[in-house]
Amino acid sequence: MFITFAKKLILNKRKIINDPVYGFISIGSDLLYDLVDHPYFQRLRRIRQLGLADIVYPGALHTRFHHALGAMHLMSQALRVLQEKGNLIWELEMEAAQAAILLHDLGHGPFSHVLESVVIPDVPHEAITLAMMKDLNRQMNGRLDIAIQMFEGTYPRRFFHQMISSQLDMDRMDYLNRDSFYSGVVEGAIGADRLIKMLDVSQDQLVVEEKGLLSIENFLHARRLMYWQVYLHKTLLSAQAMLTQIMHRARELAANGDQLFATPDFARFLYNRFTLADFYQQPDLLEAFNGLDDNDVWASVKGWKNHPDLVLSTLCEMLLNRNLFKISFFNEPPGEEVLAPLRAHLTAAGVPAEHMDYFLITGETTNSAYAKEQDPIRVKMKSGALLDTADASDLPTIEALTKIVRKYYVCWGKNVSLRG
Amino acid sequence: MFITFAKKLILNKRKIINDPVYGFISIGSDLLYDLVDHPYFQRLRRIRQLGLADIVYPGALHTRFHHALGAMHLMSQALRVLQEKGNLIWELEMEAAQAAILLHDLGHGPFSHVLESVVIPDVPHEAITLAMMKDLNRQMNGRLDIAIQMFEGTYPRRFFHQMISSQLDMDRMDYLNRDSFYSGVVEGAIGADRLIKMLDVSQDQLVVEEKGLLSIENFLHARRLMYWQVYLHKTLLSAQAMLTQIMHRARELAANGDQLFATPDFARFLYNRFTLADFYQQPDLLEAFNGLDDNDVWASVKGWKNHPDLVLSTLCEMLLNRNLFKISFFNEPPGEEVLAPLRAHLTAAGVPAEHMDYFLITGETTNSAYAKEQDPIRVKMKSGALLDTADASDLPTIEALTKIVRKYYVCWGKNVSLRG
Amino acid sequence: MFITFAKKLILNKRKIINDPVYGFISIGSDLLYDLVDHPYFQRLRRIRQLGLADIVYPGALHTRFHHALGAMHLMSQALRVLQEKGNLIWELEMEAAQAAILLHDLGHGPFSHVLESVVIPDVPHEAITLAMMKDLNRQMNGRLDIAIQMFEGTYPRRFFHQMISSQLDMDRMDYLNRDSFYSGVVEGAIGADRLIKMLDVSQDQLVVEEKGLLSIENFLHARRLMYWQVYLHKTLLSAQAMLTQIMHRARELAANGDQLFATPDFARFLYNRFTLADFYQQPDLLEAFNGLDDNDVWASVKGWKNHPDLVLSTLCEMLLNRNLFKISFFNEPPGEEVLAPLRAHLTAAGVPAEHMDYFLITGETTNSAYAKEQDPIRVKMKSGALLDTADASDLPTIEALTKIVRKYYVCWGKNVSLRG
Amino acid sequence: MFITFAKKLILNKRKIINDPVYGFISIGSDLLYDLVDHPYFQRLRRIRQLGLADIVYPGALHTRFHHALGAMHLMSQALRVLQEKGNLIWELEMEAAQAAILLHDLGHGPFSHVLESVVIPDVPHEAITLAMMKDLNRQMNGRLDIAIQMFEGTYPRRFFHQMISSQLDMDRMDYLNRDSFYSGVVEGAIGADRLIKMLDVSQDQLVVEEKGLLSIENFLHARRLMYWQVYLHKTLLSAQAMLTQIMHRARELAANGDQLFATPDFARFLYNRFTLADFYQQPDLLEAFNGLDDNDVWASVKGWKNHPDLVLSTLCEMLLNRNLFKISFFNEPPGEEVLAPLRAHLTAAGVPAEHMDYFLITGETTNSAYAKEQDPIRVKMKSGALLDTADASDLPTIEALTKIVRKYYVCWGKNVSLRG
Repeated sequence: MFITFAKKLILNKRKIINDPVYGFISIGSDLLYDLVDHPYFQRLRRIRQLGLADIVYPGALHTRFHHALGAMHLMSQALRVLQEKGNLIWELEMEAAQAAILLHDLGHGPFSHVLESVVIPDVPHEAITLAMMKDLNRQMNGRLDIAIQMFEGTYPRRFFHQMISSQLDMDRMDYLNRDSFYSGVVEGAIGADRLIKMLDVSQDQLVVEEKGLLSIENFLHARRLMYWQVYLHKTLLSAQAMLTQIMHRARELAANGDQLFATPDFARFLYNRFTLADFYQQPDLLEAFNGLDDNDVWASVKGWKNHPDLVLSTLCEMLLNRNLFKISFFNEPPGEEVLAPLRAHLTAAGVPAEHMDYFLITGETTNSAYAKEQDPIRVKMKSGALLDTADASDLPTIEALTKIVRKYYVCWGKNVSLRG
Repeated sequence: MFITFAKKLILNKRKIINDPVYGFISIGSDLLYDLVDHPYFQRLRRIRQLGLADIVYPGALHTRFHHALGAMHLMSQALRVLQEKGNLIWELEMEAAQAAILLHDLGHGPFSHVLESVVIPDVPHEAITLAMMKDLNRQMNGRLDIAIQMFEGTYPRRFFHQMISSQLDMDRMDYLNRDSFYSGVVEGAIGADRLIKMLDVSQDQLVVEEKGLLSIENFLHARRLMYWQVYLHKTLLSAQAMLTQIMHRARELAANGDQLFATPDFARFLYNRFTLADFYQQPDLLEAFNGLDDNDVWASVKGWKNHPDLVLSTLCEMLLNRNLFKISFFNEPPGEEVLAPLRAHLTAAGVPAEHMDYFLITGETTNSAYAKEQDPIRVKMKSGALLDTADASDLPTIEALTKIVRKYYVCWGKNVSLRG
Repeated sequence: MFITFAKKLILNKRKIINDPVYGFISIGSDLLYDLVDHPYFQRLRRIRQLGLADIVYPGALHTRFHHALGAMHLMSQALRVLQEKGNLIWELEMEAAQAAILLHDLGHGPFSHVLESVVIPDVPHEAITLAMMKDLNRQMNGRLDIAIQMFEGTYPRRFFHQMISSQLDMDRMDYLNRDSFYSGVVEGAIGADRLIKMLDVSQDQLVVEEKGLLSIENFLHARRLMYWQVYLHKTLLSAQAMLTQIMHRARELAANGDQLFATPDFARFLYNRFTLADFYQQPDLLEAFNGLDDNDVWASVKGWKNHPDLVLSTLCEMLLNRNLFKISFFNEPPGEEVLAPLRAHLTAAGVPAEHMDYFLITGETTNSAYAKEQDPIRVKMKSGALLDTADASDLPTIEALTKIVRKYYVCWGKNVSLRG
Repeated sequence: MFITFAKKLILNKRKIINDPVYGFISIGSDLLYDLVDHPYFQRLRRIRQLGLADIVYPGALHTRFHHALGAMHLMSQALRVLQEKGNLIWELEMEAAQAAILLHDLGHGPFSHVLESVVIPDVPHEAITLAMMKDLNRQMNGRLDIAIQMFEGTYPRRFFHQMISSQLDMDRMDYLNRDSFYSGVVEGAIGADRLIKMLDVSQDQLVVEEKGLLSIENFLHARRLMYWQVYLHKTLLSAQAMLTQIMHRARELAANGDQLFATPDFARFLYNRFTLADFYQQPDLLEAFNGLDDNDVWASVKGWKNHPDLVLSTLCEMLLNRNLFKISFFNEPPGEEVLAPLRAHLTAAGVPAEHMDYFLITGETTNSAYAKEQDPIRVKMKSGALLDTADASDLPTIEALTKIVRKYYVCWGKNVSLRG
């Protein structure tokens, strides 16, 4: 707190950063440099993009920090392409769009969906992002006004918002690219380079030139593959279910007045349930939130592995040593013919009925590679007309990619023993 | 503790693991699978190979877990090459050499040199590695006997030890390769693929065929570049110096009876000073050591950022927000003409004389790309003779690479303010 | 003729070859080395895999020589995987399968389909390949017996033939991989590495493990993309049409007794029309065929650019300077409303009616990514059952990939002027 | 001749070209597009950058066409970096520098040094390049004035010339990059990306920032490696020596009035000996020169393989079937103790004394990675001073890289038999 950020006044902050994915990322202005340098953004260094995915793909350790820089890089590439095609883009817009994409994930907690759903269930991460952006804007005397408008979708030129948030935004392009690269799932490469060269603006919409149709299809296909191969990988779903149950149990114990090991900032969230209003009314809550990262979660799991509560300590020990729950997929919700034998097994392993839900978990996942209705990817035909991708292509596969695929799963602790 | 590792008995544990560096890594036997699966090895998932280096290279987040798997992969590649050249290698030796290289880094603590030198100053990490390997061997009923001999250098066929530990070992090949890949410093690529194709055994020594001379030179050159560009990068040295001072201060406060936030396992090491004998005499000390990883350090730094001790909290806050010490290199040890003004600056910033050493640090680094004397890289000439690389080459650069380069540095907190 | 191949007797011919695609390719036996060294195989150095495709993708210059080596490399990788999964494969089979895939394209002429259809219209290239393999087998005293059986599909273990020729053969895997790499169409990457790891043999059929389903789908998708983006690229079709017309005109002139510049070997084919029987009856015809490569075609086109026949010289000049015909695609065969105006334009440009077909060309192309009926890609389910890929997957896209897409095109010389 | 290039008038010629090395290359202006489209530049499609090198590295088939495009791409990247660092560069200069680098190799014949030294020994290729650039400038009404000044070094701002021709020019960066990529010699990667980011202009000189010192050293090292591993590879030197002797013999026979098969354009050069004055005085000589490419050479070698002259036909047959001369390197010029036995062997093989020089060839090669004197690579120190690289570095290796390494070789036809 007592540190004066005198260096912030130094001019000429141009910097290039090594990136295994793109070679180099340039930070293109002093404002962008100051944002990267801010503690809110530096926190993202300590939050992995893919949470627990390294349990399956040991290379998938990249952070939200790196992802946000990469998305900023793609934004600058894409805007340059748009300029070269004759679209007028002001320097201020260029900077604002990069700022917006840089900050778009600020409000994510560690292990995003796991933590957010259990520990801060009442406040969506987008709302926290916006609160942090507004706080930054205040600290920076309004220099983020346009960036926030672009982020919220209120900036008059709508295509900027589509570049930040749509089915073909720079966020998605970078994360698919980066997740594919670091997981080593090379088949997930989306060809971002070519896609970006094909972008244009027409009728204030972000569009793809007709000759980029195969590139879009490839992008959707790669995205689908990444879902099934990485994001919804069975082992990862199992580990996430375990961490979710750990957090549920910890909160339950906390609510019962149990004393749990935790870093100071994490303890605050473990022992309270905050609303969005709290974030705006308690001046130091954002700062406490900014104290949360992956280390708090792992330190807790390690600190709890010897906790007297058998449910908590068993789950922690199993996760730490990668002794994971079994998981099976089903096309229909699994019935008693599936669940009853598992319950019997767990009961025999010492799991009491009231704790059964911690060791036998059901869930569902859905995925469609291309959600046609909500926000189509628009193609500019040589005739000038704008078509939805699925209508522009005469290939049968794009239509197939719009189908929603739904799967159900059961996840259970095969090697559990609760006989203390 | 109460978990039974029943799954360990399942047969047929072949597995392939995605690796962005090599494509796929195969785990070639049940023994190797069991080693990877063991909590001692799983801990390495939570220890980064390059410690703080992501502060400069945001992609450099790879773990010792991934590195050890990669080294095992190169070992199997190299042994296969040796076999194809007519060297007899038994399956048991093949497995043992892979086991040895897999486990060679078990005893590293988090942020290795930083932590090890301050927190466990009396026990070198190699000694802990050996203790852990012996403990594993006990658990596995002697199945690691040969691997341990190879690791220690007592196995009769000496070239196996050279593949595990020498100037051209698989450890080094993987880490240079991997560090170059993840940092994005592409110039550091060592051409491991070709080097391995050039390996052979002659007179029980690991050698390189004469036609691989350029590859060796390239390897040494790349290694040198990695030192100056990555391992000894100014900003990284500065961050390491800061973390070292944080740990010194924490131990000082702990020794004075101060109550410091820490995970249970880390607290044990923070409040005690263990010897190697302790590791063999206290049955649970290895387990506690196995509880230490990067998360303990970061959780502590975060937990201490509001500690009442101004030295500790200032250093923690600065490191967390990447507000790093300035650093300068010198060819001679810097004298008072350099240090006096810095001391004056720090005094003016409120640093009292007795804490000056926390904010003004001097040190030195040395590097020679090829240490000719100790353990030469041997080249098998077409004539059959074995020569030291530097003698085998008629190019003037290899000789130059044996020179030791020494640099001195001063590191100081330019933006510090200790006026609480 | 008078050269004695004494070096053929030297032992120990192991060799590794640099390959930008796979790193290194090893030649695994003396027989394979001798095949690579033979003039029949060395000719493939001078025949590009993709014919005229460098007119669109300037990097796509790779030869059938390199492709055949690459396919041999994949074959050895795949066979090793099969071995590791417990399939017994003899060394002789290993060598024969590699020999067969190495030689599978021997009988291709330069600019394969273009030249073969016009210059040797009565003999399919597979028949010439077989004639050359038999001739080699004779020269090598029967050492290719098994390889030829595998190639023809008469070897008892059928899966070997499937690895040489099927919808998932090593030929296809290498060429898709290699064509994608050299054209720079990165979206066409098929993930060969992973596909090969998923191969197995069941009921004497080459199969893919169930967990490789996404990899197959990705493979089919990438293949489809390569067709539309590379093999059937409009500009390439146009250039091929032009070269075809050049060859038609040259043969027409030759048939009329015109004296045409040509290398001696090419002249023989230009002035005669051979049958398969000729290849077996005229002892030197194979040797003359082996004298044909890309250089003959380009040298001819250059030699003919000043030929007095205006049709021939105009077409050659246009192709040499990349002044290509226009081309348009249609979903239905184009009718007179399309063709009549083009004919009028060409007539006005001086093209006489009897030569109209040289400057106005129609054609059709079809493509289906997965030809389900003829030769399914079999998936081994965890249950042990073998299913056709399209039945094994519950994803809607594989079904879509079996659809046949048919397109029609018109190609015409927009910038032609025949007023000499 | 009768083709009207009407399409040249079409506007909006922007185009992107796939490049496996850089992803995509953009053609940035109509002038550049017209240059690429011109027959002078299209010829480069048919001339390989590395001549015969594919005999060792089968992937090394890339053309001068692709190289020139790549160099143009790097030029645009580098100029953009210079702009971002505050150097004013006009659009016209940007275009001219790209045009100059695009055209810098126009005057190369096929198999450059081989052909040029034997077939056009009196006219250096640079002089032909200039003649072609001037001819283009005439056709384009002076639009290449600045480009030609930059190429010749007469343009007032000297750093442009240094970017076209110096030890750190874009030509060299692209060819080292590209040759490394296509040969598969990954160790030759120069890190062009980073080098370019480090460029600046100071005192009208092209300089590298001090923090790029390691990158320069890496560049020089990679360049040295490429020389010994690729450009001066023994097998390649041998093949080049053979092709040189083929051309010598062909000219000798031609001078004696022998009738030799050749394409019309090649025949003109084979039967005449032109001076630079001829190129300016004979209006169609440039056009004939533009008719020469790799196909002429290979077609000739193939056409001559049955020529009655035993020297010519033997050499051609051997080269075609990769039955190459043996070659040995020496540190001193080899004396009679080396040559006499070889001569005896060849005499026994039927080589008459008067033809001995065709089958027993001596030569020398020299290489220094960094030619310090002639044209230093300048480093801008943080102090602002400009230093020669060798003086700016305190590493001992750069000094070593300035040493000139000289080697002598003997090359002879071990498997020759001239008994017809």
